[in-house]
Amino acid sequence: MAFPLAPLLMKLQMVSTSDHGSVVSMNLFVALLCACIVIGHLLEENRWMNESITALVIGLCTGVVILLFSGGKNSHILVFSEDLFFIYLLPPIIFNAGFQVKKKQFFRNFMTITLFGAVGTLISFVIISLGARELFKKLDVGSLDVGDYLALGAIFSATDSVCTLQVLNQDETPLLYSLVFGEGVVNDATSVVLFNAIQSFDLSHISTSIVLQFVGNFLYLFVTSTMLGVITGLLSAFIIKKLYIGRHSTDREVALMILMAYLSYMLAELFYLSGILTVFFCGIVMSHYTWHNVTESSRVTTKHAFATLSFIAEIFIFLYVGMDALDIEKWRFVRSSPGKSVGVSSVLLGLVLVGRAASVFPLSSLSNLFKKSPHEKIHFKQQITIWWAGLMRGAVSMALAYNQFTRSGHTQLRGNAIMITSTITVVLFSTVVFGLLTKPLVRLLLPQKPLSSIVISEPSSPKSFTTPLLENGQHDSEADLGRPIIPRPTSLRMLLSTPSHTVHHYWRKFDDRFMRPVFGGRGFVPFVPGSPTERSVHQRLSEEN
Amino acid sequence: MAFPLAPLLMKLQMVSTSDHGSVVSMNLFVALLCACIVIGHLLEENRWMNESITALVIGLCTGVVILLFSGGKNSHILVFSEDLFFIYLLPPIIFNAGFQVKKKQFFRNFMTITLFGAVGTLISFVIISLGARELFKKLDVGSLDVGDYLALGAIFSATDSVCTLQVLNQDETPLLYSLVFGEGVVNDATSVVLFNAIQSFDLSHISTSIVLQFVGNFLYLFVTSTMLGVITGLLSAFIIKKLYIGRHSTDREVALMILMAYLSYMLAELFYLSGILTVFFCGIVMSHYTWHNVTESSRVTTKHAFATLSFIAEIFIFLYVGMDALDIEKWRFVRSSPGKSVGVSSVLLGLVLVGRAASVFPLSSLSNLFKKSPHEKIHFKQQITIWWAGLMRGAVSMALAYNQFTRSGHTQLRGNAIMITSTITVVLFSTVVFGLLTKPLVRLLLPQKPLSSIVISEPSSPKSFTTPLLENGQHDSEADLGRPIIPRPTSLRMLLSTPSHTVHHYWRKFDDRFMRPVFGGRGFVPFVPGSPTERSVHQRLSEEN
Repeated sequence: MAFPLAPLLMKLQMVSTSDHGSVVSMNLFVALLCACIVIGHLLEENRWMNESITALVIGLCTGVVILLFSGGKNSHILVFSEDLFFIYLLPPIIFNAGFQVKKKQFFRNFMTITLFGAVGTLISFVIISLGARELFKKLDVGSLDVGDYLALGAIFSATDSVCTLQVLNQDETPLLYSLVFGEGVVNDATSVVLFNAIQSFDLSHISTSIVLQFVGNFLYLFVTSTMLGVITGLLSAFIIKKLYIGRHSTDREVALMILMAYLSYMLAELFYLSGILTVFFCGIVMSHYTWHNVTESSRVTTKHAFATLSFIAEIFIFLYVGMDALDIEKWRFVRSSPGKSVGVSSVLLGLVLVGRAASVFPLSSLSNLFKKSPHEKIHFKQQITIWWAGLMRGAVSMALAYNQFTRSGHTQLRGNAIMITSTITVVLFSTVVFGLLTKPLVRLLLPQKPLSSIVISEPSSPKSFTTPLLENGQHDSEADLGRPIIPRPTSLRMLLSTPSHTVHHYWRKFDDRFMRPVFGGRGFVPFVPGSPTERSVHQRLSEEN
Repeated sequence: MAFPLAPLLMKLQMVSTSDHGSVVSMNLFVALLCACIVIGHLLEENRWMNESITALVIGLCTGVVILLFSGGKNSHILVFSEDLFFIYLLPPIIFNAGFQVKKKQFFRNFMTITLFGAVGTLISFVIISLGARELFKKLDVGSLDVGDYLALGAIFSATDSVCTLQVLNQDETPLLYSLVFGEGVVNDATSVVLFNAIQSFDLSHISTSIVLQFVGNFLYLFVTSTMLGVITGLLSAFIIKKLYIGRHSTDREVALMILMAYLSYMLAELFYLSGILTVFFCGIVMSHYTWHNVTESSRVTTKHAFATLSFIAEIFIFLYVGMDALDIEKWRFVRSSPGKSVGVSSVLLGLVLVGRAASVFPLSSLSNLFKKSPHEKIHFKQQITIWWAGLMRGAVSMALAYNQFTRSGHTQLRGNAIMITSTITVVLFSTVVFGLLTKPLVRLLLPQKPLSSIVISEPSSPKSFTTPLLENGQHDSEADLGRPIIPRPTSLRMLLSTPSHTVHHYWRKFDDRFMRPVFGGRGFVPFVPGSPTERSVHQRLSEEN
């Protein structure tokens, strides 16, 4: 990946030809971002739409308008750049995900999430790679080697669950939300790791030792990336706690949190680790420790500033993908044989559907085997929702496809050109068509009324006895309130959930005795006692976590 | 100016050679930014240092270390890019300046500020241009044409008052602060406009009509840029007020404010106006209307997020200038004749001192002529402080010098190379040496004790009768409290200040009757009545403005 900071900008100056043209496109783009926000707000109540699809459609429409104005020659106002995506747009989204995630739910379902995210992605990868190699033979799509097929597998295993998450509600369906959400993060990381491994390993002769090496490499990346994120997060907590005691300065704190978060991502890239995983865990640690060490204003500011950055980056990506899709140069090769491109896209879409099904349903059954309580099992309707949530393909697929198929110049080879256009087709089709159907489907499968009685009771009942262990004593009243809602006998379930109970218990003990005194965190930072603002804002914000 | 968005990034990918090298430099840079924040915090109590100098010194040290490690070959980790500066770093700083400025003080001193910022800069420009042409003849600095000398005048008229503003206190010396601050903004705009005018006008034969055209162009730019900023700000206020009534969404609001602010800057660039002026006035309008239309959380978030962005951008710039200064390539030409470079730098520094003196002292006297109250006059000690405040040269000078003298390749001509290194020398010397002397000088000229009795009484006394006009009725109690502090008879002063009084009165009437009902603003947005947080945060924040 290239990093477009100053040394590259210098080169850039020499190659840039139409300066004012860039100002025009930048203006257009920022104005369109504003339009997306306003229109997205107006369509919020709509039955089908969500913000992502709005941005994508606006981007497409703009592309069409530009194409018409330029007389069918050019819609080249923006060309998708994987650098822009991986260096500037993805980190804030993933960091914010870690920062805002409900940590209890996430860690309780950690094994299931890893199963779906890592093993599920591998299953999809194998099915799509093998399927593409078999089916493309009949279509005559130009020269693709084994590395290209494996890359296709990695490209189309990268799900984009933004649409689904905009529809699912973290409070109404916490289990489903945390599964889909957590799987999305692990899936992104797995796909990127897989993709990099494919590009770096020698694939001409695949042997058992190479496969083992591959698995070892994957585990190494997973553990080290996580550790790096945790260490950076703890370091930020430590610095802010040690230095700012008593004399808080909001701007410095916020700046330090933003910079340390970004540093964690860049450090991971420096050591060839997975920046996505690192920045995700950095976000989790920062929300658990650092966030409690800063002033009240900093707490409000970081919470909303991170969410806003993530929001802008998301809209940016969808608008970007939409505007780039109509770039006329890419479609030049396809025009001569439109049927072939449709064929390839359909094959890939079919493989995506099958690969996802082949990973979700068996793995759900496997996960259910280990859960003895019927309320922790993943029901069939929930399985369908999880399956559906991973059908959309988004910016990660685009970025990886560009990396693989545009290396030597701009889609010069016919095979490469078809792969790029097919990726765009799959991304557009899956996001728009599958995305539009998501809201109605979720409403059909998980109806609002029964849902609030069935699904809510499920995670709130473990909460009723795990809360005292997870929280400080001050929140006991909340847990007591939760109990009367569930009339079932809790003794059996108490026993069944003992393992996670025990782990949580020891973690909490460790956290209270060793971690919090050093790194701060809720209850370990002195507050201004008399301030009503302090208390009310603090409580409200911390309860949301 | 080139705008490095996607189309350029595509080109970039092809020219980038060492990807991982960029990751290394990016890591180093972000880590250094963190270090600057922490060290700046630790040195806060120090008598001499401030954050800017810390960043500059850290940048220089890093440059030295890299130079040693690379065996004297290269410190090329970061090369100053005017695009990065003008497109990404300057807008947040100027916008935040407008957003946080005390509007009353700023507008009361508007004429004096414009006098210093516009006329003063022109005087400096003329003196430095003429002086350089006369004195450089004796030094034999290579081929420079009349355009180059005029550009030098514009480059070294651009002050950088960040150092001074870090030392002056807005509450203790409000008159001085608003003069230095306001002058800085107008000065930046004037220099950039001058510079662009020099590059676009035909300078081979200067006639009266060209000078008139030039002045007309300047006034046109000033007025249209201001109008554009005001209109964009009002539009943002209108959109947020109309759309978000009742159902506020913090992330959308904050995103819209950030994007609209940036849009105002880019629109100004699109129409070849002064983006600096536009985004400054957009900030003022947004803090007067838009900021009151958003939720409480958005208010806290925007206030601190803008300040943080500006803070990071400032440190970034100084670190950047420091690291770039040791780039070995630029000094190659100088090595052969070090005396010449020192001579040129000394001449330029001398011209800066003289040019600044020739504008500040006469213009202060001129301004004092129109002020009849002795408390509104600028005393000699204050004049020295203003003179000193404008001696530092910073990133704007660097950016303009790069634009003028590196156009064809990288400082190929000997004259150009000497100009670049001299600019770096002047920037470093003035920032570090003059910057280090600022704190002691200000303490010497404006001692804390007498200052709080002399200077504070001066602006708080007009406040005692203008406040009811400037504020809604709800703040009358504050104004009443102010009155008993001043024992002087107010009748004469009341009469003398009538002009500004009257303008304020009619503006307030107009604002209350026409503007606020449409665009919102303090007192025109319904609050949640019972919320103590709402009230306390709102009051605290709005009192700061």
